[in-house]
Amino acid sequence: MSINSVAVVADLGESYGNYTIGDDDALLGLVTASNIACGFHAGDPRVMDATVKACVERGIELGAHPGYPDLVGFGRRLIEASEEEIRTDVLYQIGALDAFARIHGGKISHVAPHGRMGSIAQTDAKHARAITDAIKAYDPSYIVICQNGLLADESRKRGLQVGYVFLADRGYGEDGMPVSRNTKGALLHDPEEIGRRVVQVVTEGTVRAVTGKVVPLGHDADVVLLHGDHPQVLENGTALRAALEKAGIKATGLQEVLAEKARLATV
Amino acid sequence: MSINSVAVVADLGESYGNYTIGDDDALLGLVTASNIACGFHAGDPRVMDATVKACVERGIELGAHPGYPDLVGFGRRLIEASEEEIRTDVLYQIGALDAFARIHGGKISHVAPHGRMGSIAQTDAKHARAITDAIKAYDPSYIVICQNGLLADESRKRGLQVGYVFLADRGYGEDGMPVSRNTKGALLHDPEEIGRRVVQVVTEGTVRAVTGKVVPLGHDADVVLLHGDHPQVLENGTALRAALEKAGIKATGLQEVLAEKARLATV
Amino acid sequence: MSINSVAVVADLGESYGNYTIGDDDALLGLVTASNIACGFHAGDPRVMDATVKACVERGIELGAHPGYPDLVGFGRRLIEASEEEIRTDVLYQIGALDAFARIHGGKISHVAPHGRMGSIAQTDAKHARAITDAIKAYDPSYIVICQNGLLADESRKRGLQVGYVFLADRGYGEDGMPVSRNTKGALLHDPEEIGRRVVQVVTEGTVRAVTGKVVPLGHDADVVLLHGDHPQVLENGTALRAALEKAGIKATGLQEVLAEKARLATV
Amino acid sequence: MSINSVAVVADLGESYGNYTIGDDDALLGLVTASNIACGFHAGDPRVMDATVKACVERGIELGAHPGYPDLVGFGRRLIEASEEEIRTDVLYQIGALDAFARIHGGKISHVAPHGRMGSIAQTDAKHARAITDAIKAYDPSYIVICQNGLLADESRKRGLQVGYVFLADRGYGEDGMPVSRNTKGALLHDPEEIGRRVVQVVTEGTVRAVTGKVVPLGHDADVVLLHGDHPQVLENGTALRAALEKAGIKATGLQEVLAEKARLATV
Repeated sequence: MSINSVAVVADLGESYGNYTIGDDDALLGLVTASNIACGFHAGDPRVMDATVKACVERGIELGAHPGYPDLVGFGRRLIEASEEEIRTDVLYQIGALDAFARIHGGKISHVAPHGRMGSIAQTDAKHARAITDAIKAYDPSYIVICQNGLLADESRKRGLQVGYVFLADRGYGEDGMPVSRNTKGALLHDPEEIGRRVVQVVTEGTVRAVTGKVVPLGHDADVVLLHGDHPQVLENGTALRAALEKAGIKATGLQEVLAEKARLATV
Repeated sequence: MSINSVAVVADLGESYGNYTIGDDDALLGLVTASNIACGFHAGDPRVMDATVKACVERGIELGAHPGYPDLVGFGRRLIEASEEEIRTDVLYQIGALDAFARIHGGKISHVAPHGRMGSIAQTDAKHARAITDAIKAYDPSYIVICQNGLLADESRKRGLQVGYVFLADRGYGEDGMPVSRNTKGALLHDPEEIGRRVVQVVTEGTVRAVTGKVVPLGHDADVVLLHGDHPQVLENGTALRAALEKAGIKATGLQEVLAEKARLATV
Repeated sequence: MSINSVAVVADLGESYGNYTIGDDDALLGLVTASNIACGFHAGDPRVMDATVKACVERGIELGAHPGYPDLVGFGRRLIEASEEEIRTDVLYQIGALDAFARIHGGKISHVAPHGRMGSIAQTDAKHARAITDAIKAYDPSYIVICQNGLLADESRKRGLQVGYVFLADRGYGEDGMPVSRNTKGALLHDPEEIGRRVVQVVTEGTVRAVTGKVVPLGHDADVVLLHGDHPQVLENGTALRAALEKAGIKATGLQEVLAEKARLATV
Repeated sequence: MSINSVAVVADLGESYGNYTIGDDDALLGLVTASNIACGFHAGDPRVMDATVKACVERGIELGAHPGYPDLVGFGRRLIEASEEEIRTDVLYQIGALDAFARIHGGKISHVAPHGRMGSIAQTDAKHARAITDAIKAYDPSYIVICQNGLLADESRKRGLQVGYVFLADRGYGEDGMPVSRNTKGALLHDPEEIGRRVVQVVTEGTVRAVTGKVVPLGHDADVVLLHGDHPQVLENGTALRAALEKAGIKATGLQEVLAEKARLATV
């Protein structure tokens, strides 16, 4: 018996001051969950306030998207921070976002570390421990969004729920991991294909790699991510939602997806 | 029947990265409440974490000390921010500090806007509204530390408790307000005198102005502030605590002071 | 005998990290001079490098566009900085930009203070002195771009050349000054009209105010500014250049314009 | 025939806004050359202005000390920046410092990359190229202060002079390199020993390693560095200067040291 629901998430609230990135208004119509920048790599208090408000009004799950303190690098450059620095930077950002959740009557439900902080946490134990220590201490009900790796391991070790993410618009390798950005096929351009892939990964757990071979993803696909900086993100998201609907897969919040998975696991 | 308790507060956690300001360890032994910098004008996540932890361990009340986003100016320069900018900047900072309160099992009990943001809020309605809107929305149980003025007015208008502050080591004018820093007598240097003044202001509500005339303070002295950058802050604080004890005035948390005041008011 | 040349300038290089503002590539085809952000209110070292390089390659005059250290506020909010803070902040920014001028074989020819720093300098003596002291000390051959006011006065007092600016796409009042942004008519939307106005102000020194009355500008129009954030900036710039050409007014660098003016003055 | 002169340098101007680090006034009496922070990892325009002014007045050589844009980490954490980012960040900082050199009638004579940027450049080709490309493009007469490694190699490859640095107050390993900070013996505490070591390394080119074995340094000791954050920096510096004088070694600017070395090499 298989899961028939999935969450759809996008990085939101990455504008800053006079600078705008992404078409958040359009994305808000396509997602069931949000990864909201917290002011270190992107976002500012006004953007956070408006983004949280919009999510709460539309019933979109709130997620914290903490990153390195590196606005000019957009959080995409490794900073060799200490475990203490990473842990406290993550706590600071979660708390800051939570202020806006609180005043708008919402609640953060997950954390998805941004950019290089997120990717390095898959393989670097220091990052994985720091991030999950912060989350566990702040609110152990938060779900950690990640792929397979140390961050998932450390999350489970601390009793934190993991929401496995599948990158909807990115090519995967035969190892069941996204290929690097400069590899041929790294960015998918056919919205229909993006929709089909997501249905396949949710229902069968497999993905056609950039090599053409169909391989197992290696982990669940609890939540699929749309990249807001993809030039066709709206077409991709629309096709994705249509494909899910046609396949009878419910696009819903990540909490509901994990609850369903848990129910099925105990049957 | 008069109040016989007062809170003693100092600005804490103003170090940043490799930079240290103030002798927080010593101050922690003298105060009953803290104004903790939140990362905009001073403080960083490590400093905030350590400062909150130390306060919680010693039973010192936690206060948020939000300021302008101006580290190089230490929050002492007016920024003509919009009401929306001030409100959201204050919320962001309170939330960030609250993360550390939460993980250390503490609770923020008051907010004291820092530096120029705090002083301008006494006379500028936009600042007073923005700050109190933020506090009211986040947690209406928070006490607002301020002097007489618009910030106190807007606090009461929103049902927020006000904790009136007396600057222990600063000279006052005949109008019952501190004189500006470059006025003769602005900084007091005699620890004994500082102790005597505080006893007088708490028990009689009066202060000897820099002119020599004894004048009413014009508001209660619920909490007395020691400036951490005063060269003799430790001597001042020690003399202050000794003077309070000798006079039978209890140095305690601001919540208790206000509760006592409320009880007396309803007798 | 009248001036028959004018410089055309735009604010350039205001992008930052992953954030893009303005269509600099298109603007570079329309202007003869640049105001380049220096990293405090906008711009970063990569953007500065690329912008300077592009200007040097196209023979566009290089101008420094220093602002307050307030990226989140884009330099549009007054910061009550001291004269020393303003002077050294301006020096720092000019030097930083000059590094890129130097490596690309160019030379800064003017300084135009950005946003609120520029507007307050028209009426605040402290700002006017600080900015002109910095310029005078760094390179007294630099031209100061401004409108009438204290900045122009202090520039002349120090022997600095002034390049008077006319805002091509903004409505003016009967006092010969641009009306504030929220006034009706503050933003002009007809490219043809923008072209006609510039020709008129250059040749006759007059402008039709938002009230309909034709008034003297009150100062020369040595350089006309196109706002890069105007939704029709390219149409405006194209119409402006066409109108100038048709009227036989040469669009050229500000140095040449001022040199011509000086020649005519001594005839 | 051996060199009988050496330069003495310290990192200066690392204060920031309200934050003070180091006793620059005292250090200025001990050094012949300065590494001045440029505002990215430490320093601000006021501090830079005052530091440059003091150096020029005392005839101390001016050096740029660029670092990563990481004030909270004091430039001590690796940032995986691109070559383009490093190159332009270095250029920006050199230009900014040069503004103050220029207005005070001084001239930058060397560049010493700070902290982690400097140490990684010894082994990372990308950093070494980026830093030396920036220096070469800005002013090929600048000396690069470094130890043996890729930064020295890339400097020579570009025709830049290298000033080899010996860390006066740090323990060295048998490989002729400073041992890491947490190794026993990493920090020297005996001022007399510090003086003796410097004389030995200048006259004989050898150093007693933390293991007790005397080893060759492996490179010249053109300039010796005093760490301003060493608790006994003033005693160390005083003893060092006395030891040099007693040994007949002239403490002078790095330019003069290198010029003498060049003369001797051509004899």
